[in-house]
Amino acid sequence: MSSIKMFEKPLGMRDTFPQIYEKVEAVRQTGRDFLYRRGYEFIKTPAVEYFDTVGKASAIADAHLFKLVDSQGNTLVLRPDMTTPIARVATSKLLKERIPLRLAYFASVFRAQETEGGRPAEFEQMGIELIGDQSVFADAEVIVTAMELLKHFHLEKFKVTIGHAGILNCILQDYTESVEQQNILRTLLVQRNYVGFEEAIESFDLPKAKSDALLQFIEEAMHVKEIRDIEKYVRKNDALEYMQQLAQLLEVADLADYVAFDFTLSSHMSYYTGMLFEIFASGSGFPLGNGGRYDGLLEVFGSKVGATGFSIRVDRLLETLNDQSDKRPEATVVLFEEVQFEAALAKAKALRAVGKLTTLQLRSSLVNEAAFLTNFTEVVVVGQEEVGSE
Amino acid sequence: MSSIKMFEKPLGMRDTFPQIYEKVEAVRQTGRDFLYRRGYEFIKTPAVEYFDTVGKASAIADAHLFKLVDSQGNTLVLRPDMTTPIARVATSKLLKERIPLRLAYFASVFRAQETEGGRPAEFEQMGIELIGDQSVFADAEVIVTAMELLKHFHLEKFKVTIGHAGILNCILQDYTESVEQQNILRTLLVQRNYVGFEEAIESFDLPKAKSDALLQFIEEAMHVKEIRDIEKYVRKNDALEYMQQLAQLLEVADLADYVAFDFTLSSHMSYYTGMLFEIFASGSGFPLGNGGRYDGLLEVFGSKVGATGFSIRVDRLLETLNDQSDKRPEATVVLFEEVQFEAALAKAKALRAVGKLTTLQLRSSLVNEAAFLTNFTEVVVVGQEEVGSE
Repeated sequence: MSSIKMFEKPLGMRDTFPQIYEKVEAVRQTGRDFLYRRGYEFIKTPAVEYFDTVGKASAIADAHLFKLVDSQGNTLVLRPDMTTPIARVATSKLLKERIPLRLAYFASVFRAQETEGGRPAEFEQMGIELIGDQSVFADAEVIVTAMELLKHFHLEKFKVTIGHAGILNCILQDYTESVEQQNILRTLLVQRNYVGFEEAIESFDLPKAKSDALLQFIEEAMHVKEIRDIEKYVRKNDALEYMQQLAQLLEVADLADYVAFDFTLSSHMSYYTGMLFEIFASGSGFPLGNGGRYDGLLEVFGSKVGATGFSIRVDRLLETLNDQSDKRPEATVVLFEEVQFEAALAKAKALRAVGKLTTLQLRSSLVNEAAFLTNFTEVVVVGQEEVGSE
Repeated sequence: MSSIKMFEKPLGMRDTFPQIYEKVEAVRQTGRDFLYRRGYEFIKTPAVEYFDTVGKASAIADAHLFKLVDSQGNTLVLRPDMTTPIARVATSKLLKERIPLRLAYFASVFRAQETEGGRPAEFEQMGIELIGDQSVFADAEVIVTAMELLKHFHLEKFKVTIGHAGILNCILQDYTESVEQQNILRTLLVQRNYVGFEEAIESFDLPKAKSDALLQFIEEAMHVKEIRDIEKYVRKNDALEYMQQLAQLLEVADLADYVAFDFTLSSHMSYYTGMLFEIFASGSGFPLGNGGRYDGLLEVFGSKVGATGFSIRVDRLLETLNDQSDKRPEATVVLFEEVQFEAALAKAKALRAVGKLTTLQLRSSLVNEAAFLTNFTEVVVVGQEEVGSE
């Protein structure tokens, strides 16, 4: 045995103890029921996929993939997201005649951690994919569903920040002088490194009109109230019109209050090709979830239908809901002596029949009875519970 | 890209499509509620563990472990069972003062497959562990819980076959002449290779009295009605008395009809030290589940408290329940044109408010409307649903 202690877990791996488990379970049930009733069908995909299919297509950085090798020498990965496996499933079988497909999941995804930074290497996501509908109505449905899901969890203070990969690309193209410059700026935006963005622009030595426009854009585009406010930066194009229509649909759905636009929004998920968004709960710096249109990913899998979806991180949702009710559930224990086994069984059966959560325990097996009994709100000792009926 | 096609999955890996997903979900809910109400607390452990802790202790053959290496060079494994991770958790933290602990799980476990044989490499188990109670009552509770769980699923035709590692070891010791012979015979019993067992005995060239006794034992011990029927083979010992007491408790619990004894029962899980059992549904050759006492495993983790438990394979339970009701759920689709978005939202909201599973779909996005509509039991076309009220 190496230096690893028997009770240790790999970097970023966590146990979920009963109290948290029940909270996750409640979120799972509520979320599942909500999405199911809106026509989303749940599916499950394997935890392990081929690197050459899901691993490469997933757009998660190589260093964050858990890789293994099978007995045939193929490289496998633990799924780093659910969108890519669902794209695999949808293009391979389900798709054909049933599009648009509405699929949902509640599943763990895996991201290898390199340093002890408190980030989980396995975490649960809940989400949907709407596959085979290229219209702006599909994008509106996805955003509306995400918003109404959060409202269903009684979360009122949240914002969905929406951007568009096409508009950002168009601006970066128009105001830089090489693809390399565009890529540098895009990477800085993914990292939200705005200081670095400004420094990069200076270092590019662009014509003043261009660098001024870019600096002003980065200032303004992060908090856009009306789509038309950014019209001045960008050539009239389909993406702009698309976003105007999307904004209008969200207004019709009476959800405009939860919407913000951020045209600097960019994603490390390179498969987002159109509108993309992030969900923020007030008071949290980390996005609760994200989503967008990823027609490009379906093309990787050989299918030219459009797709859009979102995913929410269950751990962050749980933190946001901040359910302080650490109230213990009502729980009864029936204590018995060896000769009372039959009576104890009958007692437990009767208690369970009236809906009580009931544990049966041989008294002489208890090492520390007082400590054990703190787990229960009611203690029944067989033979003592019916000493009389006065 | 190698020869792997984009839609392929690794050997033994499966997708779970919506119809099966819903059946698994129903089993999960029913089983979870049943175990929870009996005082078992659900926990979750990571999919990835250190090989040096859970991997080595799990007693799953090396060739069936999914191994990977982390950035520090440690070997990791995908958990091959849930008993070992729970032993890790119980001995590391939870245990201290709260024993006996009653823990439950519903989780995937991973077993690498070497050849295409239709065996799953990832499958779900539902089970319990009762940790910190060395008494026969704890073993009785585990078996009773397994049996009543199956009855709760309306499964009536099943048998729990119970053996005891100690009794088998005692017999193998008494009628062979070396540890090597014992190990050979034990391995053959794990494989249920009874022909091989007889051949091995012949090849050992044992004294006739011993080989006769072993051959007779293998004949009789597989289907034992009364514990005393095997007394003639074995020196009077604690294990025999223990089994008699266990049999009596199961009779008191009115579950004797579901019990069979098989003292040839042996396990590839080397951590089973005492009573062990397998669950068979009538008509299936594969065990639905198994369990037993594994005090030895807790000792590996440095704790001398006893532990016992069972696990059931969800896929096999599902096959056994053989729920043929492939009835589609009631589902409504609201079809709308672009200009009717607001009215469609209102319609969907109203339908959902009365509990209807409702999908909203822009009509012009449908490639094959007729095929799409086969997914629904009710179709509402916005603008057409209230043409009059005659």
